[in-house]
Amino acid sequence: MNPPRILAFDVFGTVVDWHGGVAREVRALRPEVDGDAFALAWRAGYQPAMQRVRSGELGWTLIDDLHRLILDDILPRFGLQDLPEEQKRHLNKAWHRLDPWPDVPAGLARLKSRHTICTLSNGNIGLLTAMAKRAALPWDCILSAEVFRAYKPDPATYLGVARVFDVAPTEVMLVAAHQDDLAAARACGLQTAHIERPHEFGAAHPKDVSPNPANTWHARDFGALAGLLGC
Amino acid sequence: MNPPRILAFDVFGTVVDWHGGVAREVRALRPEVDGDAFALAWRAGYQPAMQRVRSGELGWTLIDDLHRLILDDILPRFGLQDLPEEQKRHLNKAWHRLDPWPDVPAGLARLKSRHTICTLSNGNIGLLTAMAKRAALPWDCILSAEVFRAYKPDPATYLGVARVFDVAPTEVMLVAAHQDDLAAARACGLQTAHIERPHEFGAAHPKDVSPNPANTWHARDFGALAGLLGC
Repeated sequence: MNPPRILAFDVFGTVVDWHGGVAREVRALRPEVDGDAFALAWRAGYQPAMQRVRSGELGWTLIDDLHRLILDDILPRFGLQDLPEEQKRHLNKAWHRLDPWPDVPAGLARLKSRHTICTLSNGNIGLLTAMAKRAALPWDCILSAEVFRAYKPDPATYLGVARVFDVAPTEVMLVAAHQDDLAAARACGLQTAHIERPHEFGAAHPKDVSPNPANTWHARDFGALAGLLGC
Repeated sequence: MNPPRILAFDVFGTVVDWHGGVAREVRALRPEVDGDAFALAWRAGYQPAMQRVRSGELGWTLIDDLHRLILDDILPRFGLQDLPEEQKRHLNKAWHRLDPWPDVPAGLARLKSRHTICTLSNGNIGLLTAMAKRAALPWDCILSAEVFRAYKPDPATYLGVARVFDVAPTEVMLVAAHQDDLAAARACGLQTAHIERPHEFGAAHPKDVSPNPANTWHARDFGALAGLLGC
């Protein structure tokens, strides 16, 4: 297998800590809220909301707008239905203000020295750009479901990266912390790198990060991946 | 007028010197070719080729592919019809390897400190990404006609930038060296900054760079624009 020319990164959970960021932001607004449960509830609405788009029930809808639909749905469960509209809008953009895992800045810089690094996220371009600017993530390019008007795991997203860069699918590698995302990328002929993010769902809810031999690489974090790729 | 949050940059001619870069590359392949005339001939095919897409005569076609159609058309005029296919493909990617004008790296760094900076180019995403990586252009985000599947001056492109970042059109400023591009952006409600690039068509063919008072700003180069915007 030749080394990949393009590294395409899943973002939520793989690059940034959505659980810690969302929990922190809701606690900052209302210290009495269970931030852990709130973050998990919001994220639990994510796949079902995208499924409404994939199935055609909803027309094409950006993640910022899906996040808001889910937020409005869960606010009453946490006693937050009276949150002023301005604070709801601010909270909805918590997803723009997520922090990267500690290994990310140095790891991306090493990987960028030898590869083109881009996002491949279901997050919209505006969200990913705001996040990258705030956290100084040095993407060569921001690719999003918004560019392809299809949500992962639609093959149009993985194959779209290869088409954008005019390379074969096998010259692209998806880097992700989620086996379902990686499996869909493999089915399209991409190389894959699995990154362990044991605390994606919070320190209280460690997840299984066992290697799957079907992936091209398995790495603890971005620094370890850079080492495996000789960067 | 409030300062713009988003600066969207035209690229060919405004950020990079296409004339100098194309002339240099064709001369490197065949020193006997008139690089100036070759660059002008290739660029002269650009608007007509996009017009074939705008009119519907061609389906959606990326600039890399339009550049190749024009290249194949002009090669015989310069006695280059016998160029090997590999060299044709290499030459076609000369547009990926254009150098920025000397003021660009420092100017963009200053502008980026206070604004979100993105491309808004008819060039495809792969081309713009390769160019940015080679020339270390620090875009926050690469936007292209490819994202909107419409070529400037289609309003979908200018208004598309505002939609991507969820801002009003007046919070976006197009930065360009071309009055027609700027006029189309103004018609969509964007702010505009005109940049002088007197040698866009080569030192032998200086162009009119007089200010148009309809633009929000007029600046000699990116450093001057940064000064005007207080960066």
